[in-house]
Amino acid sequence: MSERIKEFQKTLQKKELDAYLVTNTTNVYYFTNFFSRSAAYLEIFPGSTPHLYVPELEYEEALSRAKFCEISKVEKQSDVFQEIKKDLETVQVKKLGIEETSMNVKTYQDLVQKYNFPKLENGSDLIDELRKIKYKDEIDKIKKACQMADNGIAKAMEAIEEGKAEVQVAGEVEYAMRKAGSESIPFDTIIASGYRSAFPHGTSSDKKIKQGDLIIIDLGAKYGGYASDITRTVVLGAPSTRQQELFDTVLNVQQSAIKACLVGEKAMDIEEQVRKTLTERKYEEYFVHSLGHGVGLDVHELPYVSVKSKDVLVENNVFTIEPGVYIPDFGGVRIEDTLVLKKEGPKILTRAKYTFEI
Amino acid sequence: MSERIKEFQKTLQKKELDAYLVTNTTNVYYFTNFFSRSAAYLEIFPGSTPHLYVPELEYEEALSRAKFCEISKVEKQSDVFQEIKKDLETVQVKKLGIEETSMNVKTYQDLVQKYNFPKLENGSDLIDELRKIKYKDEIDKIKKACQMADNGIAKAMEAIEEGKAEVQVAGEVEYAMRKAGSESIPFDTIIASGYRSAFPHGTSSDKKIKQGDLIIIDLGAKYGGYASDITRTVVLGAPSTRQQELFDTVLNVQQSAIKACLVGEKAMDIEEQVRKTLTERKYEEYFVHSLGHGVGLDVHELPYVSVKSKDVLVENNVFTIEPGVYIPDFGGVRIEDTLVLKKEGPKILTRAKYTFEI
Repeated sequence: MSERIKEFQKTLQKKELDAYLVTNTTNVYYFTNFFSRSAAYLEIFPGSTPHLYVPELEYEEALSRAKFCEISKVEKQSDVFQEIKKDLETVQVKKLGIEETSMNVKTYQDLVQKYNFPKLENGSDLIDELRKIKYKDEIDKIKKACQMADNGIAKAMEAIEEGKAEVQVAGEVEYAMRKAGSESIPFDTIIASGYRSAFPHGTSSDKKIKQGDLIIIDLGAKYGGYASDITRTVVLGAPSTRQQELFDTVLNVQQSAIKACLVGEKAMDIEEQVRKTLTERKYEEYFVHSLGHGVGLDVHELPYVSVKSKDVLVENNVFTIEPGVYIPDFGGVRIEDTLVLKKEGPKILTRAKYTFEI
Repeated sequence: MSERIKEFQKTLQKKELDAYLVTNTTNVYYFTNFFSRSAAYLEIFPGSTPHLYVPELEYEEALSRAKFCEISKVEKQSDVFQEIKKDLETVQVKKLGIEETSMNVKTYQDLVQKYNFPKLENGSDLIDELRKIKYKDEIDKIKKACQMADNGIAKAMEAIEEGKAEVQVAGEVEYAMRKAGSESIPFDTIIASGYRSAFPHGTSSDKKIKQGDLIIIDLGAKYGGYASDITRTVVLGAPSTRQQELFDTVLNVQQSAIKACLVGEKAMDIEEQVRKTLTERKYEEYFVHSLGHGVGLDVHELPYVSVKSKDVLVENNVFTIEPGVYIPDFGGVRIEDTLVLKKEGPKILTRAKYTFEI
């Protein structure tokens, strides 16, 4: 049995759940190493072998990847929830955990009304909390994804030039990461220049890059299903005093925040401190998003590093620290790294240089 | 008021819904032309102005795009569902439509238990049915996305060579589409060669392409939020008799199926006919997926072209026709085009050549 299934079985026992039905395909991959492109259903029991249902056309691949499960093919005409119900009846399941934050209302209603499933209990957090602390093999994969993202940043700095459209730079960068082995692009690559750098969520547009533009480069790569996330901000040509001051402030705040990430710290306190410093510099109102987020199979997952977060940082959390200051009609600066928390302190996994002038 | 909002208001009146809460960001984009990268909530009423709630950091962009709505900023500390509830009370909403196929269970439970919302009525199909029939501007965008995908196919045929890894070809293809203006890659580009071409869902792997391999190339581009979808299958070098026979059969079946797509036809009958022909050729058991699917803001949407589909084809449906035959340990052939249905018949939007030998 895989380590993470064993760990989850302990959770089920503690929570007195007789079984758990995993329907989120990313969570299915987490437990089985098999990623479905359509739909897969994984039953996990506290004390017996997990049972995985996969579509006929993915059966062979599931067999080769999901080593610790009994695997059943869902034929075209069969009713998978009916089959799952039979399994649950066989072992007399009374309380079944589900992922309430990803299961849709329709499926839930069907399970309750049409299939008359046992009592469904919200259990998204049980998996989220498990995924929040990474195993060594997960950290290794994220590390590789971070190296690929570093390549992407280097490529962007090389590709950016006067008159080139943002989307073209994005295309070149994504190609470089793909060549470096990235399986896919976990989120749209952001190249946001000039006034667009002041849009915190601005992606890449047809806008042509101009001399003197602040340019936010935010990208990620993917390896073994695991994502990375990094942001650098550059200026094309010599920076103005105001641009330089903004950059120095954000970099300073970011590096201090990273140093403050220690085992046992409250995530909210890290952002609190950043906001305090930015308030002193009159920038706080322009920092309109949270300081960071966990990175793993999803680009955004636990722990959240924000004033609203309840997370306390623990060993082998992997997350970003990414303060940003966005001044309308002037421009923005965001600097972001992905890091893993170790007993001795934070270890930055994205290693691209903090170059400003290019 | 935009045409599609007016159309939807008529639906609400007919279904006796006092309001509809759109939470699926793709649907929000469909109605407002504003795409949120995090979360947005759109209230649509049968007889008054829609009300859009967007995060603070997307407010400026929403203002510039969502022309027909009242727009409210969701501040960091505010409770959006509380605000929405107030709106619903003001106009005395008793029945509220929701998207049960995309809303998650947690949100639903919160609306019912924590916020005590008016009666929630399943209404995903109301939007799905609207989106199934495309407006002219939507068809124009899909057409552009199809041209970009054609570029991708041409690039793949050029890039494929002995010894090159599938993922490398995928990377080159995606770059070509990005350069041609594709906003993003709507699904992982599939380059599946040799034995891997027999995996209907196989994406791109490290496998090196070999002389004599059947190679499935399945890709899409995106323009203005709209996707395209195309598949070609090639062989590197001279095809064997069996490969040629398989290719000819699939192409033949595909072209006949496209011709059969006429206004008023039942989608299930189109696949039924394909299965009949493939049964005669002893290939039917190897055709393990459906014949086609709608294409629009999502790569898979209504109408579904399968034996299970209840759709009747109507003018301005946009969908794929993609028969595939996958023979384990030999290889597979799939040929797919995206087409728009007009009064006079089907019009193929993807125009890449059906080249086999490269």
